[in-house]
Order: sequence, then structure tokens, then C-alpha cells
Amino acid sequence: MINYPDGKKRNPALRPAKRANLGMDLETDLNITHQQYVTLDRALVYKKPTPIQIVHVDYPSREHAKITEAYFKIPSTTDYNGIWNGLYIDFEAKQTQNRTRFSFAKIFPHQWTHLKRVAEHGGLAFVILRFTLYNETYLIYINTLLTQYNDVNTRSISYTWVKHHAYLIPCRYQMPCDWLSVVKTTYKEHTL
Amino acid sequence: MINYPDGKKRNPALRPAKRANLGMDLETDLNITHQQYVTLDRALVYKKPTPIQIVHVDYPSREHAKITEAYFKIPSTTDYNGIWNGLYIDFEAKQTQNRTRFSFAKIFPHQWTHLKRVAEHGGLAFVILRFTLYNETYLIYINTLLTQYNDVNTRSISYTWVKHHAYLIPCRYQMPCDWLSVVKTTYKEHTL
Repeated sequence: MINYPDGKKRNPALRPAKRANLGMDLETDLNITHQQYVTLDRALVYKKPTPIQIVHVDYPSREHAKITEAYFKIPSTTDYNGIWNGLYIDFEAKQTQNRTRFSFAKIFPHQWTHLKRVAEHGGLAFVILRFTLYNETYLIYINTLLTQYNDVNTRSISYTWVKHHAYLIPCRYQMPCDWLSVVKTTYKEHTL
Repeated sequence: MINYPDGKKRNPALRPAKRANLGMDLETDLNITHQQYVTLDRALVYKKPTPIQIVHVDYPSREHAKITEAYFKIPSTTDYNGIWNGLYIDFEAKQTQNRTRFSFAKIFPHQWTHLKRVAEHGGLAFVILRFTLYNETYLIYINTLLTQYNDVNTRSISYTWVKHHAYLIPCRYQMPCDWLSVVKTTYKEHTL
């Protein structure tokens, strides 16, 4: 129990699910979850570093290199990949504050191509999508998503479509984005 | 045939293998090879970006972010991973100018751990090692390498050991480091 400034005692465990400090940052939640996967020896999944174009580096001492000019590059693949159960896994993670839709423009064209290729090579490719205002996170397999993406008239998917075609990812304190539990029960329908 | 300044004609294809402009940079050779793999739809393998700790970013304009202070971080995994034939592939690439030995210290402890874990999870983990002075590049599966690494008295492997325990990677103009041709014929002995 915690003493709040207003003097009342509240049990943090009873706070509503939509509390502002949980699930606000998908990347943090994934990092925590992936560390748990490694600790429990369930899977190996890592976020790739942000690609940077380095222009200038200073060497103030022999050991320390200081980058003084660099720029962000457009990533050529997705943010996350790894291995589970011998299977190659590759996904992009996105969150949106929009209540009703997710725009395909948020995923770069070569990331779409990459995810499609992963599925063609026998890997497991998907997108993890969080609607932050609902604090709901979904796993959408790339082949499901491509049915919409390949339709030239469709430039986004609705929240309703996601609820019907994607899998809700369980969120627990120690595993705030446990997508592997979804993969375990559904991957067979979504691999070659 | 090319006319050289001394007036003699020589066939470039007959030049010795140790020519200075080929195989000097393993990373470049791997990039060219991996692009070929993707073009020919054989495998998807990418180099992970170098991990950078960003300290300060300037925004001179709305579109352009300029990183003005950043530092190199120690990588937590290996440089390369990807998928071939549904199989997860993960490797570290190193080159040495040493004629006789390769020191284990060139690979970080957590990279050893990572490669070991990949093999335990059913992936294909190895090290690509180039002896630049011989212009020879070898593929050494992690389990073979661990027999030496786990011996507390062994802090390096000799060139002779590599020649006996590793696979020589073919080097061709369009595929200067075609490790996949080695993997195809040997992976079954080296996966769980």
C-alpha cells in the first residue's frame, strides 16, 4: 500500500488497466519482455540498433571515440528479429495514438518487402501494433496484413479490422508484451 | 588482355590470388555477397547497424536531425543474422593480419554466449574468419570453436587448427564470400 499526497491509501494493483504509466512505450515493454525470454531461455530476440550515418568522429583519447556529426538513416529492415524453437522470427513494432485507424505509411515500403520475403523464406513475420489510448497491443501476421496492403484502395486499417483479424497480446507486469504466448498457439497456420 | 605501362600484356584472370585489392575488407565482401543472396532470393542476411549511444541531437530544420554527440557501444550480439531455408542463421565476422593465430579476445564474451545460445535454440551459429595475408576465409561452426574456447589453457586458435577444423569459403568475383555454399553442404552436422 502506498501513501498518496491526498492522504488516502490505494493498492497500486487495483489501478485501472489504462493507467498512463503502463504500456505507454512499446519499445520499453518489448525490451523487458525479451530480457525475460532470454533469462527463461524461451527465445532470443533483439532490437536492432538504429542505423546511423557517421560523418565525423573525434578521438580525444586513445580509448574514447566521440562521434560529433552523424545522421539517422532509414532502416532497411525491421526493428526486431530472433529465434524461437529453431524458427526465424522477424517483426516491426508500432504504436499509434489514433483511436480508429493505423496508417500503412508508418511502415516503410522496404520493410513491407522485407517482412513478405521473411514469410516466403519460411520465417515468421508479423507486425506488433499498439493502440496506446486503449492500451491494447495486437499481433498481426504479415500475410493477413498484406491482404489489405495489396489493395490499392486501402491505405490504412481500422481498429475494428484489427480486433477481428489480429491477436490480442497479453500484458502482465513481468512480461508487458508477451507476444510469444500468441505465436506458440497460432504460428502453424502462418508459416509455409 | 590489358596493356600495362611496361608494354607487356597480361591476363588479369591469371594474377595471383593474394592481390591487394581483393578480399581486403571482409565487411564489403559480405555486403556484396548478401546483396546477391537477396537478389537471387537464396537467403536474407543483414548486418546489424553499429550500436551507438546518442547523447545530443540538434534539429536545424524540421526534417533534419543532426547528431552532435554520440559514442560507440559494445555490441550485445553478433554483426550478422538472417534466414536461409527457414533456418535462423547468426554469425560474427572477423579478419586478422596475423599469419599464425587468431585470438579469442577479438570476440566479446557476450558474443560467445549469444552464439552458443543460438545453437541451443536450433539456429545455425558460426564465425567467419579471414586471414587477410593469405586471403583465405573460413567458416567455423560455434560448437567446433567452443571445444577450444572452453579449454582454459587455450586463448587462441592457430592457422593450422583452422585449416583442419573449419571450411574454406569460396571466393568469386560476384560472390566474394559465398559462405552459403559451405552451409548448404555442412549444416546438417551442425544443427540440433
